[in-house]
Amino acid sequence: MPETLASRNQPAANTSESEAFFAPLREHINKLDAFFETQIAEFEPAVRELVAYTLAHRGKRLRPGLVFYAGWTGKPPSDALVRAAAIVELVHLATLVHDDILDDATLRHNSPTAAAKYGPHAAVLLGDALFAQALILASAFPDTGVCRLVSAATRQVCSGEICQTFGRGDARLSLEQYFRIIRLKTAELFEVSCRLGAQIGDVSANPDYAAACAIFGRHLGIAYQIFDDIADFGVNEAGAGKTLGTDFASGKFTLPVLLYLRRLPDAEAAALAAQLEARAVSPEQLAERMANAGVPSECKRIFQEETDKADAAIAPFADAPSATRLHELTGYVRTRLSALPRFA
Amino acid sequence: MPETLASRNQPAANTSESEAFFAPLREHINKLDAFFETQIAEFEPAVRELVAYTLAHRGKRLRPGLVFYAGWTGKPPSDALVRAAAIVELVHLATLVHDDILDDATLRHNSPTAAAKYGPHAAVLLGDALFAQALILASAFPDTGVCRLVSAATRQVCSGEICQTFGRGDARLSLEQYFRIIRLKTAELFEVSCRLGAQIGDVSANPDYAAACAIFGRHLGIAYQIFDDIADFGVNEAGAGKTLGTDFASGKFTLPVLLYLRRLPDAEAAALAAQLEARAVSPEQLAERMANAGVPSECKRIFQEETDKADAAIAPFADAPSATRLHELTGYVRTRLSALPRFA
Repeated sequence: MPETLASRNQPAANTSESEAFFAPLREHINKLDAFFETQIAEFEPAVRELVAYTLAHRGKRLRPGLVFYAGWTGKPPSDALVRAAAIVELVHLATLVHDDILDDATLRHNSPTAAAKYGPHAAVLLGDALFAQALILASAFPDTGVCRLVSAATRQVCSGEICQTFGRGDARLSLEQYFRIIRLKTAELFEVSCRLGAQIGDVSANPDYAAACAIFGRHLGIAYQIFDDIADFGVNEAGAGKTLGTDFASGKFTLPVLLYLRRLPDAEAAALAAQLEARAVSPEQLAERMANAGVPSECKRIFQEETDKADAAIAPFADAPSATRLHELTGYVRTRLSALPRFA
Repeated sequence: MPETLASRNQPAANTSESEAFFAPLREHINKLDAFFETQIAEFEPAVRELVAYTLAHRGKRLRPGLVFYAGWTGKPPSDALVRAAAIVELVHLATLVHDDILDDATLRHNSPTAAAKYGPHAAVLLGDALFAQALILASAFPDTGVCRLVSAATRQVCSGEICQTFGRGDARLSLEQYFRIIRLKTAELFEVSCRLGAQIGDVSANPDYAAACAIFGRHLGIAYQIFDDIADFGVNEAGAGKTLGTDFASGKFTLPVLLYLRRLPDAEAAALAAQLEARAVSPEQLAERMANAGVPSECKRIFQEETDKADAAIAPFADAPSATRLHELTGYVRTRLSALPRFA
């Protein structure tokens, strides 16, 4: 599961840039945090500490950021928009809590994971309770539309992760399978975040705008996951927020590796695949070989196509105040990619 | 997590009795199974095998049985009632899939658990996807009421399990805490099953009837969990569907043990508690000591109180065709208890 734009994969030097980017959302995020405070008391007493811990040890609220930017009107966010932002973040946090159990991760954002702190048993149930809370909040909207969108996206995210689990360590994963997995596991929740933001944030907007924002979110999500994959290889230890090659080490085949395997003659690809499956290649060596073969520019091209598709989706709605914000978002992700070594 | 009435804890001799009891629901359960068949295709292709496996390796559909009996009109069940039954069963199956990971259980209903067959990673995500599917189905009702009830019950079930996890191996668990845990982890879903059944099954019924059925379900659920606790000690290996003292072995303090500790002089209780925490007592020995101290009759009295409260809740609605069915249900659970050794 990818982490927020502003945390796990971010070269330390970019922190202030990220802060500047999220600065217009300060009031929105403060309202979200205040809302989360009220949510803790909704849980059973024995569970509150775990919920509070999960809500406090967080990234930069990327998915709420999508809700708020897609629902941008220039005015303070409505309670309904804050609730929508809370819903997508709760779903995301639930998946992180579960992922950390399965990856045996002990740290996230430099703090112990819920699984490390409270045990895997409690962490599975905590993730379930966070999912449930997201749907309780979704039930507070006047009709069942939000429940349907959020529960469908949740199922897709889980399905994508299951596909990824079964594909781990399998170098024969096709590019088609790869894109299917990242669309499900990452882009679905981006899509729902943007759709809900547009739908709830600006009730005066053209009804087609929410659908356009959903397409924007889907392509931004794919681009973001590609960025995350690239960052797994493209950043040296000194500048990276996480250990180089984390996904690589866990047996996930990321886009650069899949593209590189396709560039090699069959026999060489088979030999490398076997080495990869046996975890007998160092990520640093492989990154060097991929760079020499021109894999970074191919990754960048695919990434660029996705951000272009995102921008194109909302191009007909240039007058919407939120469209400007969303365009800034694709620009920001592009800047982040260009800041990675070998991707300038 | 308790298993269905008709499976895990059932003395083998009672199978035909259970079949006779569920016989009036044959058409209902067939419709539910047919509906579940259609649901499998709703999931992503890579996930379908896991979902099909989980839906096929099942108990006797107790919670759907509650929905169908509370919604009993004598006519074939409506599609909406079948959907409600599917929702509560999906939530229940999701919690079982997660529980089996955490308990390191390899068998359920004599088949490998999803965790054993597909690995814990896939099983966590499968449970999540089943939860999500339950909420997708809940979103298909005309208003958000079903979503709200189901997501709230799910959160309560998880909260109850978290409390139980933290209480494991702690002999100082108060009776109040014990009843709070079983109300959350078991009785909540019974309550929602009965409420939804009454609400959706018989639209001509008095609107107060659904609320009464909810109270019926809550007390039946508490009684059922007490039965489950008693069965953990009360059945000898030959007649039990599960190993004697399973809950006991996992460090869960069940009602008989908690009551027995309260009957002992302080020093003796502390010594036994220490032995229990160290797992230094055999369940057979303890069962014998508890029987000699009269614990079974105290358990039975509490159980009886709960079934009486269940019956009393729906007593004012004796004319409803489903009320007769629900009364038969409490009668059935009482018969099951009386069939346990030491509880005649």
